Amino acid sequence: MVYELDIRVRYSETDQMGVVYHANYLPWFEEARTAFLEAVGLPYAALEEQGLLIPVLECACRYRSPARYGQTVRVQAWISEIKGVRFRVQYRVLGPDGCLLADGSTAHVFVDRDFRPIPMARRRPDVWDALVRNAGGPEE
Amino acid sequence: MVYELDIRVRYSETDQMGVVYHANYLPWFEEARTAFLEAVGLPYAALEEQGLLIPVLECACRYRSPARYGQTVRVQAWISEIKGVRFRVQYRVLGPDGCLLADGSTAHVFVDRDFRPIPMARRRPDVWDALVRNAGGPEE
Amino acid sequence: MVYELDIRVRYSETDQMGVVYHANYLPWFEEARTAFLEAVGLPYAALEEQGLLIPVLECACRYRSPARYGQTVRVQAWISEIKGVRFRVQYRVLGPDGCLLADGSTAHVFVDRDFRPIPMARRRPDVWDALVRNAGGPEE
Amino acid sequence: MVYELDIRVRYSETDQMGVVYHANYLPWFEEARTAFLEAVGLPYAALEEQGLLIPVLECACRYRSPARYGQTVRVQAWISEIKGVRFRVQYRVLGPDGCLLADGSTAHVFVDRDFRPIPMARRRPDVWDALVRNAGGPEE
Repeated sequence: MVYELDIRVRYSETDQMGVVYHANYLPWFEEARTAFLEAVGLPYAALEEQGLLIPVLECACRYRSPARYGQTVRVQAWISEIKGVRFRVQYRVLGPDGCLLADGSTAHVFVDRDFRPIPMARRRPDVWDALVRNAGGPEE
Repeated sequence: MVYELDIRVRYSETDQMGVVYHANYLPWFEEARTAFLEAVGLPYAALEEQGLLIPVLECACRYRSPARYGQTVRVQAWISEIKGVRFRVQYRVLGPDGCLLADGSTAHVFVDRDFRPIPMARRRPDVWDALVRNAGGPEE
Repeated sequence: MVYELDIRVRYSETDQMGVVYHANYLPWFEEARTAFLEAVGLPYAALEEQGLLIPVLECACRYRSPARYGQTVRVQAWISEIKGVRFRVQYRVLGPDGCLLADGSTAHVFVDRDFRPIPMARRRPDVWDALVRNAGGPEE
Repeated sequence: MVYELDIRVRYSETDQMGVVYHANYLPWFEEARTAFLEAVGLPYAALEEQGLLIPVLECACRYRSPARYGQTVRVQAWISEIKGVRFRVQYRVLGPDGCLLADGSTAHVFVDRDFRPIPMARRRPDVWDALVRNAGGPEE
């Protein structure tokens, strides 16, 4: 499933180059990722309360064309890999006219509150199944 | 005691007006405040580990002249009031030439991990005394 | 007019106290303020392109109860004063159950790209009239 | 040259997981990168005034161990590639005991104010030479 979320660029997200500061795409990725999780029945705030944390192990982003204040960007997110205690999410940020502004990915691990990995298929099959069932990106 | 901390403006702190975004002065206030606490023997990270939290109840800032990327600003911080479970810190942000860029204040309460107020004079006289002893601003 | 905007708390907006970091309410204020401007026909991105900037002169916020990740907060914004080259906006942040989480204000000045004040009633009567016509807060 | 910069973790940089939020390593990278530039005689604020901008084309970061409030981290930065209109910087973030917390890289392009690439060797040989002369990472 490819989840799509529209986000209005905030003034606070710009820098003096007149465009969105590069680090500020990562919270957009996160907002799309957590909206994805919620759409498949896994609100992240509830997961954390249950002792399941999903920190970021890796992130990467390529900036194709600058996002600007005044725009509403569309962020697409999908699970591209899921295996063992890890999964990877890919993202695309599209401008108002559908052009690609940026794309990237984040890799995650499932851990408990002490940052110890959780073997999900066994310990949280409900979460695991929901993610596996909804993994997969845009057909190209 | 007036504590002074020099801070280099980060590019990420600017916005498309070409100056530092207004909300980004508040982490500067905080950095000066925690450097103050450390200077009087109260490193805030250790206080939190001991179960003493000092959240912000109020904040205010007046912007006199914009801070800019490339500058190192000087942030002054001092305790202007301390009473019961609360205290107030005042701040001045000075530009490279000593001119006033901004001034403001934050009000705080001492609480435990469940956000219940802690009567400091009785429960943490060590912290209380260190703060009271070092309260007071610039003589004018 | 009281403008209301719903904002989902972002994970990036929390701090290690487990609640929204105090400075992160200010971009919410701004997002509500600019949505207000847009609602009265004054999209801020367009105003800036026309050479009309509205920097923040002052900000203040009182924190009543912490906002938390997983919540959608409602931000109310209205113009409480407008006179000469300045105006003031007031805000309330309401939690999911309608309780008051925070309230505050920002003061602004109308300037050109060189930060020189613009006498609005004469130079930009269109903007001025739209603001004056929509000034005023909740009846209480 | 490997440039090293010590940075105190700010409270505002943490999230409710109790560690530094992943996106907040990128401004640290930038602060080390610009300190590197300044150390080789190229203060970035001056470069921008001269019409030379160095936006980020790509970023990547791997998180090995969480950085925490109360720590001072050491950020190492060096130029790992420079060719044509582009260069790449690599980073390591070390904890108080010298352990690796994170490593990553950013890729950049030299552009003018309209985001058109600048052939540096010809147009800004001073900048180009300073970078090429100081390129290269830790010997291993």
